Amino acid sequence: MRQVSVVGIGQTKVKEHWDKSLRELATEAILAALQDAHVDYADALYIGNMLSGELTGQENLGALIADEVGLRGVEALKVEAACGSGGAAIRAGYLAVASGAFDVVIVAGAEKLTESSNCYTTASLAMAADADYEAIHGISFVALNALLMRRYMYEYDLVPEDFATFSLNAHANAANNPYAMFQAPITLQQYTRARPVSDPISVMDSSPVGDGAAALVLMPTASLNGNRARAVKVAASAVATDSLALHARRDPLWLGAVELSSQKAYAQAGVTPQDIDLFEVHDAFSIMSVMSLEAAGFAERGRGAYLARENEITPQGKIPLCTMGGLKARGHPVGATGVYQAVEAVTQLRGEAGKNQVPDARVAMTQSLGGVAANAVTHIFVN
Amino acid sequence: MRQVSVVGIGQTKVKEHWDKSLRELATEAILAALQDAHVDYADALYIGNMLSGELTGQENLGALIADEVGLRGVEALKVEAACGSGGAAIRAGYLAVASGAFDVVIVAGAEKLTESSNCYTTASLAMAADADYEAIHGISFVALNALLMRRYMYEYDLVPEDFATFSLNAHANAANNPYAMFQAPITLQQYTRARPVSDPISVMDSSPVGDGAAALVLMPTASLNGNRARAVKVAASAVATDSLALHARRDPLWLGAVELSSQKAYAQAGVTPQDIDLFEVHDAFSIMSVMSLEAAGFAERGRGAYLARENEITPQGKIPLCTMGGLKARGHPVGATGVYQAVEAVTQLRGEAGKNQVPDARVAMTQSLGGVAANAVTHIFVN
Repeated sequence: MRQVSVVGIGQTKVKEHWDKSLRELATEAILAALQDAHVDYADALYIGNMLSGELTGQENLGALIADEVGLRGVEALKVEAACGSGGAAIRAGYLAVASGAFDVVIVAGAEKLTESSNCYTTASLAMAADADYEAIHGISFVALNALLMRRYMYEYDLVPEDFATFSLNAHANAANNPYAMFQAPITLQQYTRARPVSDPISVMDSSPVGDGAAALVLMPTASLNGNRARAVKVAASAVATDSLALHARRDPLWLGAVELSSQKAYAQAGVTPQDIDLFEVHDAFSIMSVMSLEAAGFAERGRGAYLARENEITPQGKIPLCTMGGLKARGHPVGATGVYQAVEAVTQLRGEAGKNQVPDARVAMTQSLGGVAANAVTHIFVN
Repeated sequence: MRQVSVVGIGQTKVKEHWDKSLRELATEAILAALQDAHVDYADALYIGNMLSGELTGQENLGALIADEVGLRGVEALKVEAACGSGGAAIRAGYLAVASGAFDVVIVAGAEKLTESSNCYTTASLAMAADADYEAIHGISFVALNALLMRRYMYEYDLVPEDFATFSLNAHANAANNPYAMFQAPITLQQYTRARPVSDPISVMDSSPVGDGAAALVLMPTASLNGNRARAVKVAASAVATDSLALHARRDPLWLGAVELSSQKAYAQAGVTPQDIDLFEVHDAFSIMSVMSLEAAGFAERGRGAYLARENEITPQGKIPLCTMGGLKARGHPVGATGVYQAVEAVTQLRGEAGKNQVPDARVAMTQSLGGVAANAVTHIFVN
């Protein structure tokens, strides 16, 4: 397979974009990425999205967006893996370049969640879980995560405050990210006093829904002739899955897909967790950060929350997480999120992360999860 | 890129499957394909589906189906291109094997359209068109095709009867296909007296909605060591797009994506239309067959219907179409259809098509369209 590099990145701000349609958001991000890459053409487009049909009445996004950005005619497909759709689109784009099929490929993630009423958005997000055995009983997606957090706290004798640093770190980092949905730091008091969403998950443990789009331009590394100083290599691209329904898992407190996908990625890149300079973790809920850190090998089982408590997840820590705000504070436009993570990883590896810059960042990992990590898409980027 | 072969095929009957869920249909087809391939494992699964979210409340089909067929853990993603989703999934699976990423890949298409009320299914199918500029006005997907048929008949001075042979051929072929939804031939009188759906399109010009799933197992040709006599090579895999909205096209009577995608496929396979022994065309409506024959180079512009009138589209004709019933009579479970086409092409190239066998079939083409050919996915198979 050919080695692949990211040569351009683009993103919109994440917020409630009442004035922009899904196609306008996607177009804004893609045109920014093409401009950043100094190219005006691509051979193919792969777009990650979860709910365009359910919430905006539009399928067939591939053809729609390709036309909209002036690339009518090119290969264009939508890739879906629930909340991990953005990561999945990167995977598809990566294979298209790595295979030799195409030399310039756009990967985009786009989602518009605020077009509908909140209750319909909540119902649609539950489609990431098992419709026949979970969602049918009326459980929401956050409630599934709350079950896990409750059990995790019981098993490892923790209290909600033990999870606080994930949220504090995310909001502190987002304060310096102009594309983030929330740009104000929060205090420990704000965390502890936050309204419950699905006990024990509070609003400060939950990522917010939002609208947004992000995009990458991928090219074969060999074609760059060394004259693209800001290009970043894709050192690993790996997907793994787990049972959709929590009750079908042997051990609900262990994210098997995260472990498998991380191990595949480490093997491809020839690195270990110790080599990772920053980790854009899928912090849809605090409990997901904790369990991802464990399954990906950054913490012993039951010790994920301690990394946060010991301040090791800030940009100056041992394993910086969510360096531009993560899902929690940059916002979580579900099918776009995986691509935002990659945009942020590339920003760090270029040394362009400003006040949030991780010193000497050389190896960055992103992980995009679909459902309660029923799908885990891991990428490792190296500069 | 590595050359790819189809080593196994599987399918369910297309019908209203009241007793089977989407996951059961997909599982039935995939297990049949694995058995046919004499393998009990795959490295990855790509599933084509359009409306699982809208109609059955389930996204994240990749992880769900991988688990269901006993492959929990493997890479698994859903690929969507509206009614062309099946073809798009083959494309993704093809790239995954061609790239060298995987050695055994399952491609599946699955759709359950009869779970909902007819009117909701009709509304959902309109999501293949432009939501903001077409569907919002209330036009259905069949009505968009009716506009084209009306204009086509005006331009080329035709009457509905000129389209009859497409339907007659499809139903005649489906009579010998145990997996087809309709297994009875129809008469010209039945065609001419058929109830209108959206004038001038009658029920006999329209493919029926149905539930079903189909699957392929793909492997690198080089790994077969010549001991799989029934393997069929994928000689071409190509996707092209067009504007989603008809009003945005320079010439609505010319399917640009079909032309582009066909030309790319011919170039890859090193063939011309004259070399194609059978063509599984996307006959969602008769007018689509006619326009596809023209844009793909089988007929001069305005002459597509004549091929049918002159009986050249039967298994004994110059360019056999829909040899196992096509969308019209085998049935059109939208996101599964593209994979059914491939299953049928492989059946022909293996010489296992029974009474519908195209004599000496060696080169077969399939074309899966999304929207009104806003997305065209073309594959050429060679034995």
